[in-house]
This record gives sequence, structure tokens and C-alpha cells, in this order.
Amino acid sequence: MTQRPTLALTMGDPVGIGPEITVRTLLENTEALSARGVVVGDPVTVRRALAVCGLDAEVRVLNSWDLPDAREGVVDCLDIAVLGETELPWGTVDRRAGQAAVRAIEVATRAALDRHVAGIVTGPINKEAIWAAGSEHLGHTEMLGALTGAKDQSTMFVVRGKKIFFATRHLSLREALNRVSVPQQTESIDAALTALRVFGHDHPRLAVAAINPHGGENGAFGDEEIVHLEPAVRAARDRGVNVVGPVPADSVFHQLLADDRYDGVLSQYHDQGHIAAKTFDFNGTISVTVGLPILRTSVDHGTAFDIAGQGVADPETMRSAFRHGAEFAPFADRIRAAYPAG
Amino acid sequence: MTQRPTLALTMGDPVGIGPEITVRTLLENTEALSARGVVVGDPVTVRRALAVCGLDAEVRVLNSWDLPDAREGVVDCLDIAVLGETELPWGTVDRRAGQAAVRAIEVATRAALDRHVAGIVTGPINKEAIWAAGSEHLGHTEMLGALTGAKDQSTMFVVRGKKIFFATRHLSLREALNRVSVPQQTESIDAALTALRVFGHDHPRLAVAAINPHGGENGAFGDEEIVHLEPAVRAARDRGVNVVGPVPADSVFHQLLADDRYDGVLSQYHDQGHIAAKTFDFNGTISVTVGLPILRTSVDHGTAFDIAGQGVADPETMRSAFRHGAEFAPFADRIRAAYPAG
Repeated sequence: MTQRPTLALTMGDPVGIGPEITVRTLLENTEALSARGVVVGDPVTVRRALAVCGLDAEVRVLNSWDLPDAREGVVDCLDIAVLGETELPWGTVDRRAGQAAVRAIEVATRAALDRHVAGIVTGPINKEAIWAAGSEHLGHTEMLGALTGAKDQSTMFVVRGKKIFFATRHLSLREALNRVSVPQQTESIDAALTALRVFGHDHPRLAVAAINPHGGENGAFGDEEIVHLEPAVRAARDRGVNVVGPVPADSVFHQLLADDRYDGVLSQYHDQGHIAAKTFDFNGTISVTVGLPILRTSVDHGTAFDIAGQGVADPETMRSAFRHGAEFAPFADRIRAAYPAG
Repeated sequence: MTQRPTLALTMGDPVGIGPEITVRTLLENTEALSARGVVVGDPVTVRRALAVCGLDAEVRVLNSWDLPDAREGVVDCLDIAVLGETELPWGTVDRRAGQAAVRAIEVATRAALDRHVAGIVTGPINKEAIWAAGSEHLGHTEMLGALTGAKDQSTMFVVRGKKIFFATRHLSLREALNRVSVPQQTESIDAALTALRVFGHDHPRLAVAAINPHGGENGAFGDEEIVHLEPAVRAARDRGVNVVGPVPADSVFHQLLADDRYDGVLSQYHDQGHIAAKTFDFNGTISVTVGLPILRTSVDHGTAFDIAGQGVADPETMRSAFRHGAEFAPFADRIRAAYPAG
């Protein structure tokens, strides 16, 4: 019998929905768990999450990665010792909650770098809370980059095994258009192909999404395809890689997700890939940070402060992030080799 | 027993896949047909389509809208007498094919204006072929506008009963951004609400999609939401209509299609609504032209010249267009009243 990999789970902001969806992921449908999960956080947060979800489980508090055998119905919690017994109010921006969220990410990342775990699975954090706690990072991606010394980390969406990459992401749509260039496309294509190989696609098939309606219809509706995308795709093909495009965006994601025509699609702007993934399978869409020396999967939703602490949050995306963490765990060494720590 | 409505079907370009998907729509799964279909075209085109699909059916040639009773296994064809017995080569741009396509649209539109049929269902045409035939129109929408004297026709997508509208469509993405304004949003919102009412939503619920990632995140990623979208939505709400938004585009289509949160969404640019609809249900996405005094549903795919004449084209979208034509037939009078002929 092969041993199951171990994944570290950070609950995100302790007063958001993260703790609830984390414990539900670990305790419900456990026969489907193909990895062992260890929560990195404050035991008080785990206990409160169990209570609001009406789940009866023992919280086993750990102080090192010298893990005891896993036990059914037991939630292992690597204690970050930030909150102690303090119970913060649900659903509000709180400096201490931010501190706990940041500390959990630091501890989990360290554990992955030190190979105590095969990867980390992260719950949603609140930006304002981590800023209140003194972090200057925009979010997980930047924080993980700083913690691991990585420099070119980017986001890969995974939806039912298919991958979506982004040429640009957190920019206005206008600025995304301003950034389009042949070098940008070339870099994005190369990065996507590398990631596909690292994540198990030995002969990756990539499609580049067009920017304009009908792919610009030969320049009638915009010329970004002619000026920037086509030359970059041609040059990549000349190097012998399997890249096609630009493909009209209203076809390419259907071809990816329903037709198995490609392994991945390069999306040109945030909403392009987001609309496709989340309209196709909202809860099944998870995020992987590519470029880090560690495996990190994540939910791609927020803290949902409005429903936190009620036990009603849907854990499906967290389950999916955990499942993908387990699935990608065998690639942890490849990830380390492809994206070395700084 | 209520009488089934009659729909006129134009096959589009006679050497594209239109004829095949039309006859398959009329002859396969006939128990599901909630309308009577009459093909408007050349009998030779219908016969060839039957042959390539391996379908055995009588073609009953009609010369007026004084229709005989429908008969199972019989395809009624209102003869447009353009091609005679001429068999054109499949899958090539041909002036005569263009003439037949244009003539069919003219005859079917006239039949709808004269109330011989409840609406028309159109197959895909080839632009170059209709231009070769002397038409100066960009496509169906413009041609139907000219034939009916309508002026403000626009496209509405229908996906599983849900409607998607477009603030802009056949423009470069950059130009679509340049066109965003409060008056444009206001007009688009009003047009969408009118269409929702006409198509049976007595208390329409509309959401306006945002343009920038996360809806601009309070101006951090673009200000179109703050400057243009929010004021237009606020003003509309002040008039007492049920409009929300701008809603981040990666949520709003999921909320529309999977959550029944709205009846329709106003998409800001072509690909936004197209990606959502076609990634969610490629074959189930059909197009309705709004603003005409007649009901017109349509496939939203092309002539697929590369596979025409092989009997392999998937008729699912045509079936869906026909089914929606039948479903919307009771609204023909409302359509006529809301969008009078010029």
C-alpha cells in the first residue's frame, strides 16, 4: 500500500468561512480523501468551526511535524499559538485574525519547503485583516513569493483536470489591452507549457485565446491578434511546441472543457478565463500558484464574512482544492526542480 | 387541442450545413416538436440534405402559405424557385447559393409579417456568398432590419430559458471600452428590460455585468464601474425596476445560469456573454433578434463548409432554435406590438 501524501491546510481568516469549509472537507466524505490533511492554525478556531458545523470530532493539538498516525474522526491541528483561547467575533476585519492567517501561511509554507508535507491547501484570507496585522502583501500569491524567494509566480486555474493560464490578471481591462505584446505572449506561452509539463502533461497541448470578437475577424474587430498573438504563436510552433491560436474565446474554452481538444488555454485577461471556468463549474474551479518551489492549491473565493460562523458555507471548492492537492502531490519534486526557491 | 404554431425555417446557405441540420430537426425526435415546421427554400436543397443524412422522407413542394395538413414523415417545402434542379458543390462560396439564402430569408420574413407563420428559424448563411449575390448586408440582423423596417434590432442569447443581452457586440474589445457611457448603459438596460417583458418575464430581474476584474475593486482595477455603470444602474433602480450591478462578470453568469438569481444579464462586450453562454451550454445557446416586428430565432454558429454535405453536422443548436421558436410563438403578437414594423 502506498502511503497517502500529507497536505497542510490553512484555514484563511479565522473569522471567515475558511475554518468551516476546512473541517467539513476533512470530516465529511472521508472515504474520498486521498491525502492526509493537517490543519495549521489555532485549535480554538478549529473547535469553533466544528461547533458551528455541528460536527463531533476530537481536535488533536500538535506542536511539531513529527506526526502521530492519522485517526478517523480526529482533526490534527498544528498549533500556531496566535489566538490562544480568544474567540474573535465572526465576520469582521480583525488584526488578530489577520495575524493568525499570516502565521498559518508562514508555518505551512515552511513545512512544505522542509518536505514535512507534500503541499499546502489554503483557505480564503481578508486583505484588510492581514494589512491590519502588518503584512504589506496583496494576497497569498505575493506572500508565498516572499516566503519562498520565488519571483515569477502566477495563477493557474484547474477545472476538471483542465488548466487555464492568464497573460494578465489584476489589472483594468483597458490596461490588460495595453500590455499585450509579442514578448508578453511568448513569455506567457512558455510559462504555460512549463506548468503543463510540471503538472503531468508530458506532451502539452495549449491553445491561446483571442482578445477580440471572432478573433478579430481578420482585423475588422481589432488587430491585437494579427500584430501580437499570431506572431507569438507562430514563433512558438516554429520551436516545435503544440500551441494553436489565437482561437475565438467563445469557442476555445468549450473546446478545452467539453471537447478535450487541449490540456490548457492561455486566457488574455482576468475575466476571460474566470468567466469560462466559473460559469462551467463554479465550485469545481480551484487555483494553483505556479512558480513557487512548493505545491499550493487554493479556493478561489473570498471569506464570505456575511455568512461566516453559521455553518452554511458550501465546502465544495475547498474539497476540490484538497482533492487537487492530493492529485498533484506526486509532482512536488518536479515543482521544486522547475521553480527553485530563491 | 390547441393548434401547434407554424414556423418557417430557412436553411441558410444551401451548400453549408444548414440544410442537413434543418431536415434532421424536422424529422428526428418528432414527438418533441411543439411546432409545425415549413422549410422555405429550394426542394433540390431539401432532397440533397435528406440524402446526405440518410433520411427517407417525402418532400412536399408548396407554392403558397395555404398549407395542407401536416403529415408525419413529410417535409413541407415552400419553393423559392431559385436553384431549380441545380446541384451546387458543397462547401464553397457560390453566388447562386447566396441568392437562394437571401431569397429564403425574404420569403420567410414576408410570411411572418403577413402572419402566415408565428416566426422564423434561420440556419447559417455565408457572408461572402450573399455579397456575391448582391446583398450589401453584414448578416441576418441587418437584412431582417431592412426587410421589416426595424431600426434598433439587437441580439439576445437564450440559454436554458435565461437571457443574455449585449451593450456592444461586433467591435474590437478596445472600441467596446471606448463606447461605455451612462446613456449607453441606460439604453441597454431599458432595451433588455423591454425584451424580458416581451418574452414572458412580467417582472424581469436583470443584472448588469461589470467590465473590470472584481468589478474594478473600488476603482483599483479600472473606473468604468464607478463612472458609468453604477450611475446608470442607480438611475434605473430609482425608476423602480429590478436591476442590480455592476456584478463581477465571473459571478454574474453563474448566478444567472446555475442559481436562477436573475432572468437576464446585460453583457458589456461580445465575448463576455458569449464565453459564458457557450462554455455553459455550447449547443443549447441560441440567438433571438430583438427589435424586429417578427419572432426570429437562430443558430449562432456558421456554415461549417469544411464538413457540409457529409451528414455529420450536429443539429442540436438548430433543434434548440426551433424549440425556442415554438416556445416563444405565443409572444408573436407582443413582439409585433413592442417593435412595430417601420
